[in-house]
Amino acid sequence: MTLLEGRALAAAIRGEAAAEAAALPSPPVLAAVVATDDPATEWYVGSIAKAAAATGIELREERVVQEPDAVRQRLKELSAAGDVHAILCLTPLPAGLSLAEAAAHIAPAKDVDGASPTSLGRLAAGLDAFAPATAQAVVELLRHSETPLEGAHAVVVGRSIVVGKPLAMLLLAEQATVTICHTRTRDLPSETRRADVLVAAAGRAHLIGAEHVAPGAVVVDVGTNEAEDGSMVGDVDTAAVEPVAKAVTPVPGGVGPVTTAILLRNVVTAAGRR
Amino acid sequence: MTLLEGRALAAAIRGEAAAEAAALPSPPVLAAVVATDDPATEWYVGSIAKAAAATGIELREERVVQEPDAVRQRLKELSAAGDVHAILCLTPLPAGLSLAEAAAHIAPAKDVDGASPTSLGRLAAGLDAFAPATAQAVVELLRHSETPLEGAHAVVVGRSIVVGKPLAMLLLAEQATVTICHTRTRDLPSETRRADVLVAAAGRAHLIGAEHVAPGAVVVDVGTNEAEDGSMVGDVDTAAVEPVAKAVTPVPGGVGPVTTAILLRNVVTAAGRR
Repeated sequence: MTLLEGRALAAAIRGEAAAEAAALPSPPVLAAVVATDDPATEWYVGSIAKAAAATGIELREERVVQEPDAVRQRLKELSAAGDVHAILCLTPLPAGLSLAEAAAHIAPAKDVDGASPTSLGRLAAGLDAFAPATAQAVVELLRHSETPLEGAHAVVVGRSIVVGKPLAMLLLAEQATVTICHTRTRDLPSETRRADVLVAAAGRAHLIGAEHVAPGAVVVDVGTNEAEDGSMVGDVDTAAVEPVAKAVTPVPGGVGPVTTAILLRNVVTAAGRR
Repeated sequence: MTLLEGRALAAAIRGEAAAEAAALPSPPVLAAVVATDDPATEWYVGSIAKAAAATGIELREERVVQEPDAVRQRLKELSAAGDVHAILCLTPLPAGLSLAEAAAHIAPAKDVDGASPTSLGRLAAGLDAFAPATAQAVVELLRHSETPLEGAHAVVVGRSIVVGKPLAMLLLAEQATVTICHTRTRDLPSETRRADVLVAAAGRAHLIGAEHVAPGAVVVDVGTNEAEDGSMVGDVDTAAVEPVAKAVTPVPGGVGPVTTAILLRNVVTAAGRR
């Protein structure tokens, strides 16, 4: 069993992004819209800000009052602002406003985390668009590990618009046959055992055990669930899956760092196109 | 074996649409953009015009010179035009212009055949949008035949942005587990035999035979392929599949008439919102 670590790949991506950022006339600017007091969001923005600074990117935290219209308005303003290259809309959002609805107000050229419906549709249509960084990270980790995707059967557990659905589109573009499973899937193990590549993006700690995995499968764990002791655990019970799978991504240290690196690369790309 | 005829359902949908159209202050206007001399396109526009007239809808054929920019420009003008409620962009398009690229210029509120990337993304995100009429027709035929979709395994053969991908999104919304197959799928019969509901949307005459179908499956045929004798044949070899399947849609007379009816209903809906 191989552990598909993400940190080396992430460092390579961030290194390239930093070099490209340094070649731009001014530092790329990422606006992070925050309409919550949730400490987890605060922590997440802080960690991105640190990674951004190390990559030569300026992160501007845009605090907004916790009302749907205020969020929409700020996203529109930032979409029009000449000195902002990229926009990230943090969750949770005020009640009554979904991320997709909010992100519909982000200009596609600045939508570096592929959150807007237009970005998702363009991705599905094979047109130029930023994919959600997490979905893109899964594909780049698979490519990096030289996992064959053409003709492979990929099973994605989770149908969110930030991971499951865009990832299905990316895997189709890689010529995989794709099955999308979710909470209403009748017999999850019988579906997931057909996977050459299994991606767990359900948001449920240790949902995937040995009985879900075919011998020799490659398992990618997108989950970041908080365990009772406060530590972070994935959707995959890695210890149980290890004897069966060919390779598994760890949590933390797998998809996560690659996601951040790709988000920052997208910011540099957006700035370079201006 | 039941034959899932579409004509009765189509007549019911068109009847309702006609009643709604008659209640509007003026007849709904559908602009059909044609940038080809293809006689098949001409025939198709003629058939829609006839159905539209019978439903109280005015179809305006908008002939455009066969250049990408001319098509884009006309779609933008029609999107802004106050007296046009709905827009349909016909294929084939001039070389260098994909349907998705062209349709990106159709205002989502007028995109009655769900051709624009924004419509597709909004559909995937569960936001209000017109689905491509063919994809919607498949789901409504399945509902009409009381085929259970929640927890069912649906297999879609074909990954086009006008049928396969949006249909996968609609089936996920119906709580089905969805597999998307295509030309690079390694062992198509082993995938399709797992389907409770099998949708053939590959555009290859008689691709699906008895060996592709599990006993008791419901098979929906989206194919409209021209046979050597000029007749229309589906993607399913209906005669071969009949002894195995629980139900099959015929071609012609299955998905086709429902598609036209839904397109016209969408035109009336778009006009009613103005």
